[in-house]
Amino acid sequence: MPFNKIVLSEKDIPKKWYNLAADLPGPMQPPLGPDGKSLKPEMLGRIFPMNIIEQEVSTRRWIDIPEEVLRMLCLWRPAPLRRALALEKFLKTPARIYYKDESVSPAGSHKPNSAVAQAWYNKKFGIRRVTTETGAGQWGSALAFACSLIGLECKVYMVRISFDQKPLRKTMMQIWGAKCVASPSRDTESGRRILKEMPHTPGSLGIAISEAVEDALSDPKRRSRYTLGSVLNHVLLHQTIIGLEAKKQLKLAGEKKADIIIGCAGGGSNFAGLSFPFICDKIHGKKIEIIPVEPTACPTLTKGPFAYDFGDTAGLTPLLAMYTLGHGFVPEPIHAGGLRYHGMAPLVSQAAKKGLISPRSYDQVKCYGSAMLWARTEGSICAPETSHAIACVIDEAKKAKKEARQKVILFCYSGHGLMDLAGYDKFLSGNLKKYKLPAHKLRRSLESIRGLPEIK
Amino acid sequence: MPFNKIVLSEKDIPKKWYNLAADLPGPMQPPLGPDGKSLKPEMLGRIFPMNIIEQEVSTRRWIDIPEEVLRMLCLWRPAPLRRALALEKFLKTPARIYYKDESVSPAGSHKPNSAVAQAWYNKKFGIRRVTTETGAGQWGSALAFACSLIGLECKVYMVRISFDQKPLRKTMMQIWGAKCVASPSRDTESGRRILKEMPHTPGSLGIAISEAVEDALSDPKRRSRYTLGSVLNHVLLHQTIIGLEAKKQLKLAGEKKADIIIGCAGGGSNFAGLSFPFICDKIHGKKIEIIPVEPTACPTLTKGPFAYDFGDTAGLTPLLAMYTLGHGFVPEPIHAGGLRYHGMAPLVSQAAKKGLISPRSYDQVKCYGSAMLWARTEGSICAPETSHAIACVIDEAKKAKKEARQKVILFCYSGHGLMDLAGYDKFLSGNLKKYKLPAHKLRRSLESIRGLPEIK
Repeated sequence: MPFNKIVLSEKDIPKKWYNLAADLPGPMQPPLGPDGKSLKPEMLGRIFPMNIIEQEVSTRRWIDIPEEVLRMLCLWRPAPLRRALALEKFLKTPARIYYKDESVSPAGSHKPNSAVAQAWYNKKFGIRRVTTETGAGQWGSALAFACSLIGLECKVYMVRISFDQKPLRKTMMQIWGAKCVASPSRDTESGRRILKEMPHTPGSLGIAISEAVEDALSDPKRRSRYTLGSVLNHVLLHQTIIGLEAKKQLKLAGEKKADIIIGCAGGGSNFAGLSFPFICDKIHGKKIEIIPVEPTACPTLTKGPFAYDFGDTAGLTPLLAMYTLGHGFVPEPIHAGGLRYHGMAPLVSQAAKKGLISPRSYDQVKCYGSAMLWARTEGSICAPETSHAIACVIDEAKKAKKEARQKVILFCYSGHGLMDLAGYDKFLSGNLKKYKLPAHKLRRSLESIRGLPEIK
Repeated sequence: MPFNKIVLSEKDIPKKWYNLAADLPGPMQPPLGPDGKSLKPEMLGRIFPMNIIEQEVSTRRWIDIPEEVLRMLCLWRPAPLRRALALEKFLKTPARIYYKDESVSPAGSHKPNSAVAQAWYNKKFGIRRVTTETGAGQWGSALAFACSLIGLECKVYMVRISFDQKPLRKTMMQIWGAKCVASPSRDTESGRRILKEMPHTPGSLGIAISEAVEDALSDPKRRSRYTLGSVLNHVLLHQTIIGLEAKKQLKLAGEKKADIIIGCAGGGSNFAGLSFPFICDKIHGKKIEIIPVEPTACPTLTKGPFAYDFGDTAGLTPLLAMYTLGHGFVPEPIHAGGLRYHGMAPLVSQAAKKGLISPRSYDQVKCYGSAMLWARTEGSICAPETSHAIACVIDEAKKAKKEARQKVILFCYSGHGLMDLAGYDKFLSGNLKKYKLPAHKLRRSLESIRGLPEIK
């Protein structure tokens, strides 16, 4: 009987995170301050605690995972590596399809991997309260969960469109003791300004980040800090436990190597988490195709320029060197709220610039169709973000069939879709819309980066 | 570092189900036909396929799990045994609290354990379409999932109150290709009759069973059968894999015995699944306290008489010897929809009659309070049904503290609550009601069993 899953025991959980910054060829473009000059780490001290800033700028290859963080991760980790036998059979593909199941965490996605680490470092540094933004609600839930375990106050700014589509996400965060408001909100200066300009905006991650940063900065006691669920180096670092576990498990499954690595990409965290340890192998000579998948409605890597831009809409963050659609970009209200971000993690962007990864974009209607096939073969209901990875997996499995090649495909099953069934409902009733970013909208949006410093 | 979970590998999954009927002291009261005489198995042949009827009446102690059923179970099984370290620490209890995590199935509860088996036996027997009822939606989702894997048509009658509280349960079943309607519906004679008498009824499992049975019986081609998610012997049999796995895992955890076994009980399936292998030990001399927990709004084991009664409201099923509140009983609209059933599985009832188990009832407000404490310590959000088990676990852990005894407590974490967040929302806003069955309502409801054959 072929196995369905490879489970590691808790003692085999990786004890260190992998830092791609140690291996990426060529120097990274540094983040810039408001004056256009290289940012000094201490300038971030009002936004993040220093222990996290140290991780953010570190170029050490391996970074120890604190014992207490490991203990919390073991509430659900190591996550199973599963084989999609039923999908393989349905597609009649010679490919072997594996997926790392990150949906098993209490919050339902990979996000708690970084949330518990960030909450722990903040607590350790004496911080009492953290703020954040959330798109689909996955990150907000994860942080609420982590803060509940660790004992931190938590406030979440949730993108309006997602807040309205999924009112029970708020309940979920409240169960874990967090406060959640729709963004733009009346709680911040940035929120009020945007509501005045665009009273009916569906919101965006960029706007919600502005609000969360402003909120953290305005604590008169200076005991609040901001946390981010993706994009930054330390977040991607915490997620590499996904790929490190997967490597051990592939070996246990008897696979000598993976041929294709796939992950959906919004800010880049689950994609980086799975792929970075494999990008390391690629840098050192292994032949692997590595594919980040984004929505056609928000095609950062596939259509955006590599440029300096703000991480948020109001321009409160440092300037980051990344693929971007412009910080003024507000994507269409697709259901994959976690992929509605104008930028892309600098580490992922740099890997793309160096040709180490091969980005693709897919439309949400095709993605939901793939999610339906997945549910009816493999049994589980995936998050709308994850459906982007699955659509690509199916294409690659069909290609392997055409080429009659026994490829090993590995992807990140980043989360379940039980909190996002409204999108499925629309798909089933034929009311789901296709979205593709029109060239004129992209041009207009890119005006927001005109005048910013250029990448040398 | 103490471990958080014990994971069995797929090769260690139990290969046989355990049948308590082989060990229960005293003869079982047989099911009776409409004429009051012992039912012959073949009289059930229009409702169930014969291979399932054989299991229903079997008194063999061990029954082989078919290879193909095992393969499907391995999509998520063996389920982890977890230790609730954070809750223990919070309660400062010397008790060691273990839970069998059945929330890891694609449908989110223990229900698929029997759903895949029943779907497989039906398919094997040449059946094309199955019908069923569902309360909270857990069983309906599980059957939809199983039918999707196996290739059977599926129609689900969902209790109106749950259908309205959780509209996305329908979407979930549709994703897996099933049809789901609110019960009472206009699709059946029983449904139309009840709607005429009580147009505003919240519905009940008893009513939904009547509809599903009638629907299966009225297929002119006789290729439809009825399936049930609890109560009957074969369903409880399929669930014993829970307790059998848990026993292996407790041993791996270094525990010589369990002192207290706890499960919530509606029809009895998750309670039986965990407890039957331990009841076997108790019959053979081990000292174990075994506690089924039911809601005060539907206190079948704690307030009902042991009597012959119908399994459904319309009286279409055979008469079963069980604890019952009367088949006319319609419980208050508590959120634990899966516990709103007037009867109790005959095997569980017989075990209660023989003093092998010690039933208790809890109010839903206390249960949600316990669920909140669970979420903020252990991290996961439980189903409202499961919260009844947790409330009892907390009481027992406090008692162990008072007695300063290192008891081993094991319970069934029967499902997650991500599809049932509306109840949490009510609790958080202070709008959740307490319900206790008033004596006069019980007296009135028990009139529905007057005149039925008595237990000798």
